[in-house]
Amino acid sequence: LKTIGIIGGGAWGTALANVVVRAGRRAVLWAREGEVVAAINEFHENKPFLPGVRLEAGLHATADMAELEAADAILMVAPAQHMRAIALLAAPYFRPGVPAVICAKGIEQTTGSLLSEVLAEVLPGKPIAVISGPTFADETAKGLPTAVTLACPSEGLAAQLVAAIGQPTFRPYISTDIIGAQIGGAVKNVLAIASGIVVGRGLGENAKAALITRGLAEILRFGRYKGGQTETMMGLSGLGDLILTCGGPQSRNMALGMALGRGKSVDEVMSGRTSVAEGFYTAEVLARLATEAKLDLPICQAVAQVLHKDASLDQVIEGLLNRPFTSEA
Amino acid sequence: LKTIGIIGGGAWGTALANVVVRAGRRAVLWAREGEVVAAINEFHENKPFLPGVRLEAGLHATADMAELEAADAILMVAPAQHMRAIALLAAPYFRPGVPAVICAKGIEQTTGSLLSEVLAEVLPGKPIAVISGPTFADETAKGLPTAVTLACPSEGLAAQLVAAIGQPTFRPYISTDIIGAQIGGAVKNVLAIASGIVVGRGLGENAKAALITRGLAEILRFGRYKGGQTETMMGLSGLGDLILTCGGPQSRNMALGMALGRGKSVDEVMSGRTSVAEGFYTAEVLARLATEAKLDLPICQAVAQVLHKDASLDQVIEGLLNRPFTSEA
Repeated sequence: LKTIGIIGGGAWGTALANVVVRAGRRAVLWAREGEVVAAINEFHENKPFLPGVRLEAGLHATADMAELEAADAILMVAPAQHMRAIALLAAPYFRPGVPAVICAKGIEQTTGSLLSEVLAEVLPGKPIAVISGPTFADETAKGLPTAVTLACPSEGLAAQLVAAIGQPTFRPYISTDIIGAQIGGAVKNVLAIASGIVVGRGLGENAKAALITRGLAEILRFGRYKGGQTETMMGLSGLGDLILTCGGPQSRNMALGMALGRGKSVDEVMSGRTSVAEGFYTAEVLARLATEAKLDLPICQAVAQVLHKDASLDQVIEGLLNRPFTSEA
Repeated sequence: LKTIGIIGGGAWGTALANVVVRAGRRAVLWAREGEVVAAINEFHENKPFLPGVRLEAGLHATADMAELEAADAILMVAPAQHMRAIALLAAPYFRPGVPAVICAKGIEQTTGSLLSEVLAEVLPGKPIAVISGPTFADETAKGLPTAVTLACPSEGLAAQLVAAIGQPTFRPYISTDIIGAQIGGAVKNVLAIASGIVVGRGLGENAKAALITRGLAEILRFGRYKGGQTETMMGLSGLGDLILTCGGPQSRNMALGMALGRGKSVDEVMSGRTSVAEGFYTAEVLARLATEAKLDLPICQAVAQVLHKDASLDQVIEGLLNRPFTSEA
């Protein structure tokens, strides 16, 4: 795999392209915005989305999708809700056998589908892999140590991808479980909202640690239902990403929860934002899927109640604390 | 279980005694220090160890171990390295069938034993239970929400203990796995030192989240070797406590790691301290046990190398980042 295409010129796509170049491969980064393409090619900085990080000189950006035809593997970094449309546009430029590597996180709202399910429809027959883990884009772009799960049903292809992009400061850990590797990245945003509520409400560090732990149990329950494996979700793409996202207010989802916890209404919080925290939508989809499948996801359900059903925060918290005592496992 | 004895008048023993009284039970708190006993009984505050928290008026402290004879269950909150000696002193006051509930965390350094193994020797035949989880004592004492694992081989006794002390703001989750419930509380201190090093060295949030995730894998590996169950260690006593302890510099262990990460030598850090971070010792014991049992605990071994073998921090970090790429599970 000598040439790696990257679809999506946001912060994470740019960071991954930088990783590819540092690994000694050719990177072709497709971005929709002309200003992003120009900024990267001329000034080696993605000013709109990753300001302040100097990019490798070899990183080539383009607004012309046809250039992806040179790629031996393509990283799909478009936002979850746009993945279907962008993959459709890109489909003609996948040469036969070229794998699509999902590097975005989320559940398609309209269908409740995982992104691998979306791509199986839009790019039928293409090998699919997933890269997911605890990754703030700016740290990865700067070369600070990052570890991710790289999941792929074919161990041979997984090994090729690791050889292509692995390096001491970007360590992929291999798995064959592409379902499990997508669950954490989606559900964590809902749990980060819950975590923010705990912090904003002043409920303390004990409560937050307990919430994250019981939240992982919800990730596992939902993920097993979708066909994922426990070990995957306990790893970097699940637990790791959950810890990062619930770690501090850099995450938009946690910031949303904190505002709610401090007493703002959902309307007040949402109207003041230019970009919406992904967990706002995921909460609704998850609650719907959980109800249909009779899954016990009390924390995710509580977040959906608060965000979408006007439930009172205090009543929801009291409800969680007054659940019957039960066994842990 | 109407009367609960508590051995140990430090922050956590006092917080637990407060929980017991709030649950409507009688609490007899034994403390070694006369000033602690006086402060609690007269001023309802444990000024030396839990300053600023007003304690329940019904909380009775004593320096006379014979008063423990009234207890229907005894919470053992003495520090891990003193547990054997204090349990020996207390043994005569356990009425027949009264359970010993381990509420301390750590591994006995001289023997490498878990505290349940220590108590099996010193209190032979007594029922043993474990309470462990993410618990900053001051938060629990103040009545902020706290959730813990309550492990006990007898489900009947576990249910009695839950009925005795459970309440909305102190939620025990039941397990039968007393081994697994002790592992996280011991090993997390070593991982908190590693976590502190990552922060002090400026390696970033991605690296810290990856370290905690891979650290949980080490907890699981060591715990399974000792006979604990995976599910237990993924719960509040394992993952939950790990998240809390690695969450911020309130933990002495993390503070120790941060100082090392910023370039202080082990000698400089240790000489400036009045109380030693438990992980300093646990690292040495764990490294020894892991080598004997041929367990792969790279992070714990690295911490032991830095603390006890004068290894260079940068070389140890480079060694961890340059390990061969491998599968995640």
